[in-house]
Amino acid sequence: MKIDGTPYRTIWQDAGGVVQVIDQRWLPHEFRVVPLRTRAEFATAIRDMWVRGAPLIGATAAWGVAVQMAVDASDASLAETWEVLHDTRPTAINLRWALDEMRRVLSPLPPAMRATAAARRAAEICDEDVEINRQIGLHGLEIIKAIAARKSGPVNILTHCNAGWLATVDWGTATSPIYHADAAGIPVHVFVDETRPRNQGAQLTAWELNSHGISHDLIVDNAGGHLMQHGEVDMVIVGTDRTTARGDVCNKIGTYLKALAARANGVPFYVALPSPTIDWRVHDGVREIPIEERNGAEVTLVQGRTKDGRIESVQISPDGTGARNPAFDVTPAELVTGLLTERGLCPATEAGMAAMFPDLKAAVAA
Amino acid sequence: MKIDGTPYRTIWQDAGGVVQVIDQRWLPHEFRVVPLRTRAEFATAIRDMWVRGAPLIGATAAWGVAVQMAVDASDASLAETWEVLHDTRPTAINLRWALDEMRRVLSPLPPAMRATAAARRAAEICDEDVEINRQIGLHGLEIIKAIAARKSGPVNILTHCNAGWLATVDWGTATSPIYHADAAGIPVHVFVDETRPRNQGAQLTAWELNSHGISHDLIVDNAGGHLMQHGEVDMVIVGTDRTTARGDVCNKIGTYLKALAARANGVPFYVALPSPTIDWRVHDGVREIPIEERNGAEVTLVQGRTKDGRIESVQISPDGTGARNPAFDVTPAELVTGLLTERGLCPATEAGMAAMFPDLKAAVAA
Repeated sequence: MKIDGTPYRTIWQDAGGVVQVIDQRWLPHEFRVVPLRTRAEFATAIRDMWVRGAPLIGATAAWGVAVQMAVDASDASLAETWEVLHDTRPTAINLRWALDEMRRVLSPLPPAMRATAAARRAAEICDEDVEINRQIGLHGLEIIKAIAARKSGPVNILTHCNAGWLATVDWGTATSPIYHADAAGIPVHVFVDETRPRNQGAQLTAWELNSHGISHDLIVDNAGGHLMQHGEVDMVIVGTDRTTARGDVCNKIGTYLKALAARANGVPFYVALPSPTIDWRVHDGVREIPIEERNGAEVTLVQGRTKDGRIESVQISPDGTGARNPAFDVTPAELVTGLLTERGLCPATEAGMAAMFPDLKAAVAA
Repeated sequence: MKIDGTPYRTIWQDAGGVVQVIDQRWLPHEFRVVPLRTRAEFATAIRDMWVRGAPLIGATAAWGVAVQMAVDASDASLAETWEVLHDTRPTAINLRWALDEMRRVLSPLPPAMRATAAARRAAEICDEDVEINRQIGLHGLEIIKAIAARKSGPVNILTHCNAGWLATVDWGTATSPIYHADAAGIPVHVFVDETRPRNQGAQLTAWELNSHGISHDLIVDNAGGHLMQHGEVDMVIVGTDRTTARGDVCNKIGTYLKALAARANGVPFYVALPSPTIDWRVHDGVREIPIEERNGAEVTLVQGRTKDGRIESVQISPDGTGARNPAFDVTPAELVTGLLTERGLCPATEAGMAAMFPDLKAAVAA
């Protein structure tokens, strides 16, 4: 998407062949592009969330494999790279998907052919992500159109965290329908959950929408229930870090609370789901998905910009108070109105997903 | 309650007759006591949240009337004082209750007798609040005891915002059962919602519990649903800013989301309700209670302490992004397991409340 009129992706190879990413830790206050030159740099960029968002993590890992193959394309190096990059973020299913895919392509090749093949496949994975998200947007656009047709004023959409283009290679997942609606001239207004503790909504989604000129308001994570209770939200669209074979949705902590509020108030709750984010091996998300607990300092410290322009962290709690910090939660499939996939709208049920993706399900079973 | 071993109330008359309050804007980083000497200072202290919490707002307003009566005890002054102080925080029902009560006591008296009577009644209102909260704590203690009897390990209690002793004159409402359980030797652990946007949980509840030595963890407002889904919360206790005659609970924004999660996961959801917080004139809370929308800067700016000890606000969102900031929401009575009042546990129904408080209901009808 565009930043002040210039089109960008979140990850790309520059003219000299070096992989560049947007270092998202400084948004929304500073826009920084950094090169990633070694496997260790890729691992750091994923683990320390210079890049984040399930699809972008996958794409970055793919490029990380490609960069390492140019250094050492041995079987041992390939195996070690899978492990090193996989250890960076245990919850993101796309990370495993992308690493498995790179290994699948590279393993049969003689080492001398791996570097070129790896770069080609990493670039394809990026392009495939863009196309998946474009398709999700086109299917979501139909839903927004239908809502717009039966009301006056903008279609009010609530979203949680950042499942925007910054979380993918381009378009975003949850934001793709919004960008498509805007392009189609349908007035939309977005309520952006700030998404504590890391404030991806306030820092990233708001920045994206602001850069693109989409009408939006920041809200605290606490506010969505009240807004839904008063008819101010027409639909919810969120992303997902991992969706189970029966449609349970593991996404940023707090998603579940919005799903409960949507259900209680008759607001449709959609999950934008690129198919690589499906974990066909898992069924009951609440019982089976291990939830990453991150450092409590993410809760007790808040980063922002001071009045005089410095990026600073402030402590909001007393010394001596600890914090629990589960990073994700699971929204049971029953609360999900539909899964917006690149193939169309899919019911959040075992049968619905199997019918929409028989090939993918069969591939995993095989 | 105690701060480093010294017992405090949140508002008191010092030896020289001057009203002193804890200026809560600097907690948890600095403990400051300030005198309030004029009606304007009382109005500022309430409006700008030097003091906050429904019961403490009421007590402070009562003292504000008393201080003004010492300056000008005329009917005009009394009427104007009611208006000036009432305008400071439109949602808090205790504010109106305390101002009405002061007017009821003072109006029949000749102006020359009003200053003394006002100070006496303000002091009584404070003492009554302490006694109400102590009773709420004793009734809540029975519930905690019952949970402790059927499990091992601590009783895990989630609370939202600060309905602690800092929100009252002493004991707190939602925290009173916790302090009583701790005093009774029952192990308790408190999950403290940080309570965006103003972080009363992180800044005040955590500070209170920490000062008193109660086991607790700070969590983001997003985390409670996940913890309840995994059996980590035995009960929820929150306060209320206004409760309707049928038991709808208006409380800090985000309370409703926790009530939905509690219902979905079979976790009991209690509301600590001092009877002055009941608004007998209102029935349907969602439709009838006007929700205060506060400045969007409360959302976009977060206050805390920098590494080098300065209290500073940082902006978490991009320039150009606005914010909506509804300060309260309404939890429908159906989601409330019970109302913990000074007279005992009361069903959150019209009939239950009428049976528990026939005298109060009759007084309003009269």
